[in-house]
Amino acid sequence: MSPRPSPTPERAAPTNPPSPALAPGPPPLAGGTQGPDALRPLLHTVLDALHTGATHRAGPLPAGGPDTVAAHLRDRAGDLLPTRGTGPHHALRTLVTAVAAGAADPADPLCAAHLHCPPLAVAVAADLAAGALNPSMDSWDQAPAASELEALLTRTLAHEIYRPHPSAPTPPDALVTTGGTEANQLAVLLARETNPHPQPVQLLTGANAHHSLARAAWLLGLPAPITLPTPGGTLDPAALDAALTGLPGPKLVAATAGTTDAGLIDPLPDIADITEHHGARLHIDAAYGAGLLFSDRHAHRLHGLDRAHTVTLDLHKLGWQPVAAGLLAVRDTTETTALTHTADYLNADDDTEAGLPDLLGRSLRTTRRPDILKIAVTLKALGRTGLAALVDQVCDHARHLAHLVATHPALELYDTPTISTVLFRPTGAPDSHIAAIRRNLLTEGHAVLGRARMDNRLWLKATLLNPHTDPAALAALLKLVEGHTPR
Amino acid sequence: MSPRPSPTPERAAPTNPPSPALAPGPPPLAGGTQGPDALRPLLHTVLDALHTGATHRAGPLPAGGPDTVAAHLRDRAGDLLPTRGTGPHHALRTLVTAVAAGAADPADPLCAAHLHCPPLAVAVAADLAAGALNPSMDSWDQAPAASELEALLTRTLAHEIYRPHPSAPTPPDALVTTGGTEANQLAVLLARETNPHPQPVQLLTGANAHHSLARAAWLLGLPAPITLPTPGGTLDPAALDAALTGLPGPKLVAATAGTTDAGLIDPLPDIADITEHHGARLHIDAAYGAGLLFSDRHAHRLHGLDRAHTVTLDLHKLGWQPVAAGLLAVRDTTETTALTHTADYLNADDDTEAGLPDLLGRSLRTTRRPDILKIAVTLKALGRTGLAALVDQVCDHARHLAHLVATHPALELYDTPTISTVLFRPTGAPDSHIAAIRRNLLTEGHAVLGRARMDNRLWLKATLLNPHTDPAALAALLKLVEGHTPR
Repeated sequence: MSPRPSPTPERAAPTNPPSPALAPGPPPLAGGTQGPDALRPLLHTVLDALHTGATHRAGPLPAGGPDTVAAHLRDRAGDLLPTRGTGPHHALRTLVTAVAAGAADPADPLCAAHLHCPPLAVAVAADLAAGALNPSMDSWDQAPAASELEALLTRTLAHEIYRPHPSAPTPPDALVTTGGTEANQLAVLLARETNPHPQPVQLLTGANAHHSLARAAWLLGLPAPITLPTPGGTLDPAALDAALTGLPGPKLVAATAGTTDAGLIDPLPDIADITEHHGARLHIDAAYGAGLLFSDRHAHRLHGLDRAHTVTLDLHKLGWQPVAAGLLAVRDTTETTALTHTADYLNADDDTEAGLPDLLGRSLRTTRRPDILKIAVTLKALGRTGLAALVDQVCDHARHLAHLVATHPALELYDTPTISTVLFRPTGAPDSHIAAIRRNLLTEGHAVLGRARMDNRLWLKATLLNPHTDPAALAALLKLVEGHTPR
Repeated sequence: MSPRPSPTPERAAPTNPPSPALAPGPPPLAGGTQGPDALRPLLHTVLDALHTGATHRAGPLPAGGPDTVAAHLRDRAGDLLPTRGTGPHHALRTLVTAVAAGAADPADPLCAAHLHCPPLAVAVAADLAAGALNPSMDSWDQAPAASELEALLTRTLAHEIYRPHPSAPTPPDALVTTGGTEANQLAVLLARETNPHPQPVQLLTGANAHHSLARAAWLLGLPAPITLPTPGGTLDPAALDAALTGLPGPKLVAATAGTTDAGLIDPLPDIADITEHHGARLHIDAAYGAGLLFSDRHAHRLHGLDRAHTVTLDLHKLGWQPVAAGLLAVRDTTETTALTHTADYLNADDDTEAGLPDLLGRSLRTTRRPDILKIAVTLKALGRTGLAALVDQVCDHARHLAHLVATHPALELYDTPTISTVLFRPTGAPDSHIAAIRRNLLTEGHAVLGRARMDNRLWLKATLLNPHTDPAALAALLKLVEGHTPR
């Protein structure tokens, strides 16, 4: 290679327009060799503000309910676009403190409503580098190394699901998404695009499936899904068989490994058999459940996962990543050719022929941040055993909470948890009480619990994703519910 | 409000399963009052690794081309999922250094190919808080304060475009997206969903429009767009008028304010007149150009922008945000009702009636990180005048580079830049030389320049988004091109 030119010391004679060098200095950038020094004092301010905000909040979420919290935020935030700026430290201190003080913080053991995990510090720290370098994953010349790291990571994760699968003509791979919703959307899109028939693909799901699947069919102009009742919480193979029997045209079955409401796993091997028998395509939404793969104790629950054409993963659930960390794994890399797309400025044919990688077909997005960096750092830092320990811990917490509920005189347990979701309710309470208990806990800033309808009754839902939770916190959660139950 | 319960000191008698408290301590979380202390040493490691990587790279991108860069990355990264982890500092140091050493860093003045901006340190620092708190914008109980900040910010930005617009029945607003691509996709979706006619919406764009518009029509199951030739680089009002005349059915015209290839702005007022005359709907993709609104010197170029039903903005272009920072502004808030969507676990009717905000209709995503925090901090820190200064600087840089090209004996200038894109080529060189110059500069690690086809010829493209660029760097860029021009 030829030597790099030394920067020309040329300061040209005055030109028209006037030299930009005369303008006042712009604020510092995050990149380059000077970025770290520029970031350091700003990060101190952010960490201080996060601490101040969490201290002010002093609990899992702010007290007072939506109107009060919104009013506080508005008061603290002030004018978001003043004529003259307040400077970086003031703006960071003001807004980060306000958002932290008004957060529902999943790092608090009493914040346990949703598949909304507390991210690991190591993942959040790694994500800072994604922002500072700001690679964009849509072309090689915006992400030379990051794009290779993405290729390594997606193959690594795809092989977690599809390990050795001799029938696949090409290796498995995975596409990076903004979450389970986009992954499910892509799964339906790939089914639409690989469908050789003139009739549109008919999606079939259980009533327990994530809402994003029906929304994907709507978005993509496909018929509304056929929704099979799931009275027991999971997709019944016999009901699926009956629905597929005699149904004309191309079909996509979407099963779930880790339902949002109860953390249940559909009977995957039976569903795969039936789907195959009817010549239908199979997608499995394992946004929640896929994390079990890391655990020797729990991976067996996902038996049959590798029989799906596509699988949704979401490492901002059982992966302890900050949002976003979604993926769609595909059994066969060639599936993704449906996304092939050309834009001359990003992947002109002659550039591709000359060896510049063509990355545009790996997403429906164009500009795209490297969400894989934080995932790769976390996997490498913790290893499979470290991730397994976290998975096992939250599953243990759920079993412990279920035990506390089951032995509690005034509480009813829905069922032994499959993953880390525990549904329970004060014995004999009407549904309206369940909903009110949840809202009161939220409004008073005491706890963040979710809700789910199962067996045609409303339940309180604790989704345990915090590995630092302990038995005392779990007992405190039940005491709060007890204290808020109307008599 | 009732007092918060003090954590119960209960350490229950041994239960079945064994108490999770006995397990080895999991790695620290980023949230809570302890998160900042856990993050501090990890962030030191990240900043050191960013500095080391940038020093190793010693230029705008790594030398050697795709295969060499990929091999280096693989060597450095090693096993991404080892059985036992390497610990957080080792993993951060290894992978962040590798990605930084192999980055195309837009903070380097010689990295100037794409609408790929160098983010401000203040924005990147603010984004750390988004990761640490990990709010998810799909329900109030995951983002009590962040959701209110998003509402404030989106209204603030929408009013930058739609200020006072008396004909609008409801106020303007904006939806947060992953970038211009998703914003354009949403714009086409809103057109599809607000279309009262049985025929599908027909999209019309110029050949200068971003590829994401045609991709959106494909995604959404709409007819392929009618693409009008744009020999002069912008959409010709007369050609648009001719295309709309006699065209049956509902129509959506998409104009561009800041083309990807040349930074040109379609004649917005004329296009708005014609679109209105034909009863068509108007979308303007101002992903690049919208930043001009902050500048008193340049805002006039966007005259007519407020006549569009929807406008794409992208503050990871002229807004100096790390990806993602996209928005779709809507003239009338009621437009967004097409996205109304219910999922009982996130926005049950009784919760909404009881006053919990319903956030699910603000995006096609479900889980969604608060990309608005970094934007809000940046706007507040810099103020309108600070942002205007950055916009003015990059526009001045472009005019300066154009002047250097125009007065250079061996280079040809495409045109005076409208925003901050400069197209040029060695005089008389065939297209194959242009493409080869670009690839050689990339492969040798000397410069990142783009390419664009205009006037049926290929040009080198410099998209100047770095406010720290100076005349010496711009002159160096031209010297590099000169030195790589085959004779």
